[in-house]
Amino acid sequence: MISVAVLGAMGNMGRRVAEAVMDDPELELIALVDPAAMLEFEGCELELMEDVDCLAPLGVDIAVDFTEPAAAYPNTMWLLENGIHAVVGTTGLSGEQLSVIRSAAERGKANAIIAPNFALGAVLMMKFAEQAARVFDQCEIIELHHRGKKDAPSGTSITTAERIEEAMKASAVPDSIEGQVPGTRGGKLGEVRIHSVRLDGLVAHQEVIFGSRGQTLSIRHDTTDRSCFMPGVIMAVKAVDRLPGLTLGLEAVLEL
Amino acid sequence: MISVAVLGAMGNMGRRVAEAVMDDPELELIALVDPAAMLEFEGCELELMEDVDCLAPLGVDIAVDFTEPAAAYPNTMWLLENGIHAVVGTTGLSGEQLSVIRSAAERGKANAIIAPNFALGAVLMMKFAEQAARVFDQCEIIELHHRGKKDAPSGTSITTAERIEEAMKASAVPDSIEGQVPGTRGGKLGEVRIHSVRLDGLVAHQEVIFGSRGQTLSIRHDTTDRSCFMPGVIMAVKAVDRLPGLTLGLEAVLEL
Amino acid sequence: MISVAVLGAMGNMGRRVAEAVMDDPELELIALVDPAAMLEFEGCELELMEDVDCLAPLGVDIAVDFTEPAAAYPNTMWLLENGIHAVVGTTGLSGEQLSVIRSAAERGKANAIIAPNFALGAVLMMKFAEQAARVFDQCEIIELHHRGKKDAPSGTSITTAERIEEAMKASAVPDSIEGQVPGTRGGKLGEVRIHSVRLDGLVAHQEVIFGSRGQTLSIRHDTTDRSCFMPGVIMAVKAVDRLPGLTLGLEAVLEL
Amino acid sequence: MISVAVLGAMGNMGRRVAEAVMDDPELELIALVDPAAMLEFEGCELELMEDVDCLAPLGVDIAVDFTEPAAAYPNTMWLLENGIHAVVGTTGLSGEQLSVIRSAAERGKANAIIAPNFALGAVLMMKFAEQAARVFDQCEIIELHHRGKKDAPSGTSITTAERIEEAMKASAVPDSIEGQVPGTRGGKLGEVRIHSVRLDGLVAHQEVIFGSRGQTLSIRHDTTDRSCFMPGVIMAVKAVDRLPGLTLGLEAVLEL
Repeated sequence: MISVAVLGAMGNMGRRVAEAVMDDPELELIALVDPAAMLEFEGCELELMEDVDCLAPLGVDIAVDFTEPAAAYPNTMWLLENGIHAVVGTTGLSGEQLSVIRSAAERGKANAIIAPNFALGAVLMMKFAEQAARVFDQCEIIELHHRGKKDAPSGTSITTAERIEEAMKASAVPDSIEGQVPGTRGGKLGEVRIHSVRLDGLVAHQEVIFGSRGQTLSIRHDTTDRSCFMPGVIMAVKAVDRLPGLTLGLEAVLEL
Repeated sequence: MISVAVLGAMGNMGRRVAEAVMDDPELELIALVDPAAMLEFEGCELELMEDVDCLAPLGVDIAVDFTEPAAAYPNTMWLLENGIHAVVGTTGLSGEQLSVIRSAAERGKANAIIAPNFALGAVLMMKFAEQAARVFDQCEIIELHHRGKKDAPSGTSITTAERIEEAMKASAVPDSIEGQVPGTRGGKLGEVRIHSVRLDGLVAHQEVIFGSRGQTLSIRHDTTDRSCFMPGVIMAVKAVDRLPGLTLGLEAVLEL
Repeated sequence: MISVAVLGAMGNMGRRVAEAVMDDPELELIALVDPAAMLEFEGCELELMEDVDCLAPLGVDIAVDFTEPAAAYPNTMWLLENGIHAVVGTTGLSGEQLSVIRSAAERGKANAIIAPNFALGAVLMMKFAEQAARVFDQCEIIELHHRGKKDAPSGTSITTAERIEEAMKASAVPDSIEGQVPGTRGGKLGEVRIHSVRLDGLVAHQEVIFGSRGQTLSIRHDTTDRSCFMPGVIMAVKAVDRLPGLTLGLEAVLEL
Repeated sequence: MISVAVLGAMGNMGRRVAEAVMDDPELELIALVDPAAMLEFEGCELELMEDVDCLAPLGVDIAVDFTEPAAAYPNTMWLLENGIHAVVGTTGLSGEQLSVIRSAAERGKANAIIAPNFALGAVLMMKFAEQAARVFDQCEIIELHHRGKKDAPSGTSITTAERIEEAMKASAVPDSIEGQVPGTRGGKLGEVRIHSVRLDGLVAHQEVIFGSRGQTLSIRHDTTDRSCFMPGVIMAVKAVDRLPGLTLGLEAVLEL
C-alpha cells in the first residue's frame, strides 16, 4: 500500500482527491492537511492537520497538493527535502520557483510531478494537437465555457495554441478582411486563432480544428464534472516514484 | 406543365437551375437567357438568348434569375410587366429597387419571390433560431467557411443574428474580460456574438448555440455542395403563382 | 403572488422545484408534501405534509407534482376537484388516466399541464424536428447518455422519432446492406433510424440530423445539469391558469 | 526532380494524382498508364500507355498505382523488379500477395508503400484513437456517409475499431438493455460499438468518442472532397525512397 497525504484537503479539489485516494485499493490515505483545520471532513475519520510539517513522523510516501501558489511552493520544497514525493496540481508557480523545485527534485530524495491539468482527455487533446500540427498547416481553436468564467481565452487554449505554434512548420491561415462586425475572426496567438464562447449550460469544452484541402480533423474535449480530474491525479500518484526529478505535465505519466 | 425560363443561364447557379428544371417532371425548360450567348449549354438543345425581351413571344410562365444586381432589377421589372412570375436569387438589390418591384408585383399581373438563400436547411436554421430566441436569453453564433471566403462574418450569420436580436426579449451574455489574447470573444452584433472560422476543408457551415442553466440547444447547417440550393429554387418556382405580390425569403414558401 | 405547493418535495426533482419556487419573486412556496415527512427540507422552514389533502385549507393556487404514477393520478384528480391548478412532471400516466384527468380539467374548476420533459431546449428540439420533417425526407437520430442509463433508446428519442414520422411525407433513407458488423445501422422506428451511445462522461444529449442533396441540418440538445428543467417548470406554473383544460407538453406554454 | 508515372491514370483517383504531380515543383510527371489508352487526358500532353512494361525505357523513379487489385499486384511486382519505387493506393490485395510484394521489396532494388487511405486526417484519427485507447476504457464510433454508400460499417471504422480493441487494456462499455426499438445500440466489433449514419448531404465523416467519469474526448475526421487524398499521395511519393522494404499505411511516412 502506498501511503498518501492530501494538502489543501478542504478545498474543492482536495476533498475529491481525498475521496479518490480512499476509494483506491492500492492507496491508503493517512493525512489531511489544511489551514482550515477547524472544519470537519465528512466520511473520513482522520483529523485535519494545520501544516505540512505535521507529516514528518507519519511515514507518508506521496503528498498531493491542491492549495495556492503561496502555499504550494514551500509545501513542495518541504516534501522533497523530507523524502516525500510530490504531486502538485496548484497552478501559478513562477519559473524561478519551478527551477528551485527542479534542483531539489534532482537531489534524488524524492520526485515531483507538477501539472496544470489532470484531465487525461485534455492532456491527450493537447498532445494530439501538437502531433497534428506537424502535418496540417491551418488550425483554429474554439473553447466554450460556462458564463461564469470571466476571462477569455482559457488557459488550456493558450497552452494548446503555443504547442501548435511550435510544432507547425508554416501557417496558411488567412487574415480575412472583416466586414460589418469587427472581431469575428477571433484572437490570434501567433498564427492560431482562438474563439471563446461563454454561455450558461456549457461546462468546459475545447475543440481544435485542423484544415487542409477537402478535409478537416477535429479534436474535442468535453468536461461535464470535476470528477474528471481524479483518474489523472491517481495515475500521477502511482507513477511519481518512477519518474526521477521534476516532471511537468501528465504526458510522461501516460507514456509509462 | 409549367414553362420556365432561366436568366443568367451560363452562370454557376444558372446552369444548375436549368438542369434541375430539366430533371423535374412537372416543369418544362423553354428558354435560356444569358448575355454570353456565344457559349453553348451542354446537354440542352435550347439556343441561348441574349436578352430577357426575347421571352415575350414564348409563353413563359415563370423565370428564374441568377444574374447580377445590375441585370436582375430590369429583368424582374420586365417580367412582372409582361405577366411572368419571377423567382430571383440574385443578391444586392437596393431597398428602393425592392420597393419598386413590390409595387409592380402588387399590380397583380405576376408575382415575385426574392430570396438571398435557397438552401432549405439554412432557411429553417434561421427560423428555428428566431423561435429559440423567444425562449433563451443567451446565444452565440459560430460560422465556419473555407479559407477562400475573404469576408467575415458571413451574410447568413448577420441575418441570423439580426433576427435573434429582434426576437430575444433580454440578453444575458456577459462581456468577459479578455486576457492575454484580445479578440477571442468574437464580434458583437447587438447582444449576439459571432465567431468566424476560416479553414481549408470547410465548405459553408453555421452553428447557432443557445444556452441556459444546465442545457444548450444548437442548430447547425452544413453545406457540402451547391446542389443544396436546387430543391429550394424548384419549390419557389412551383409556389410563386400562389403567393401574390412580392415575397421576401423562402419561409412563406415552406409554409404553403 | 401566486401560492405554490410542491408534491414529492423530498425527491430529486421536487427539491429543486421547491428551491426554484422560493427563488422566484412572483411565487410563494406555501406547502411541501411528501410521504417521507419525517425528513427535513434544508433551507426551508415549512413542515412537510404527508398527504395532498392537507392542502385543502391553505389557499394554494397551483401544485407541482413530481411523484410517482401511482401517486400522481390521485394527486392530480384531487387538485382539480379542489380548484387547484396542477403542473405534473411525473411520467407514466396511462391513456385512460389522462382522459379522466382531461374530463376533470374540462369541468373548469382548475387546469392541468402534464409534460414528460420540462427542459425547454428539448421541447424546442422536438418542435423544430417536426417542422424540419415537413421539408426534409431523410432523418436519423443519435442520442448519447451516461453509461448508467440502462435502457436504449431514450424516451425523448422515441417521441422525437414518432413526431418526425408523422410529419414526414415520404422517407428516402435506404436500407444499407450491413457487412461484417451487424447492427451498425441502428434501430428503426418507422423510417427514422435511432442510434444510442452510452459512455461515462456523457450526461444527456440528442442530435437529430436531417439530410438532403448537398446539405444537412442538425438540431442538438445537450443537458449538463438537472437544473435545466426548472425554467420550464416555472414557466408552466405561471402559465397554467391561462391554459384551460388539460395541456400535454410544454409547447403551448412556449406559445403563450 | 523526381520522375513519376501514374498507373490507372484515367480513373478518378489517377487523374487527380497526375494533376497533383504536375502541380508539384519537385516532381516531374513522365508517364501515364491506363488500359483505356484511347481516351485523352485533358491538360497534359503525355500519351497514355497501355501497359506498365512501357515504363521500362523511361527512367521512372516512382510509380503511383490507383488501379484494381487484379492489375495492382502484377504492376507492383513489375515495378519492384525493375527498380521503380511503388506507391499503391489500390485496395483489396490479399495477405498472400502482400507477403510476396514484401519479399520483392526486401530484395532492395526498390521500395513499396501500400496504404488503404491517403487522407492524412484519417491516418491521424486512427493513430490518435489508438493512443487514447491506452488511457480510456470506453469508446464508441459514429461514422456518417452519404446515402449512396451501400455498405455499413465503413472500412475505416472497422480498422479504427480493431486498433482500439488491441490498444485498450479493458473495456467498460455496458450491454444496455434495449427497449422498444431493437438495434439502437449499434454494431459491436469486440468491445467497440459502431454506429453508421447514411444521409444525403453527408460526404464521409467519422467521430471516435472516448468516455470516462466527467469527460469525453472526441476525434473527428470530415471529408468534403476527394482532393483530400492528394497531400498524402505526394508525401508518400517523396518519402518512398527513404523507407526500405514494404511499408503498410501512411503512419511511417508521417513520422519521417
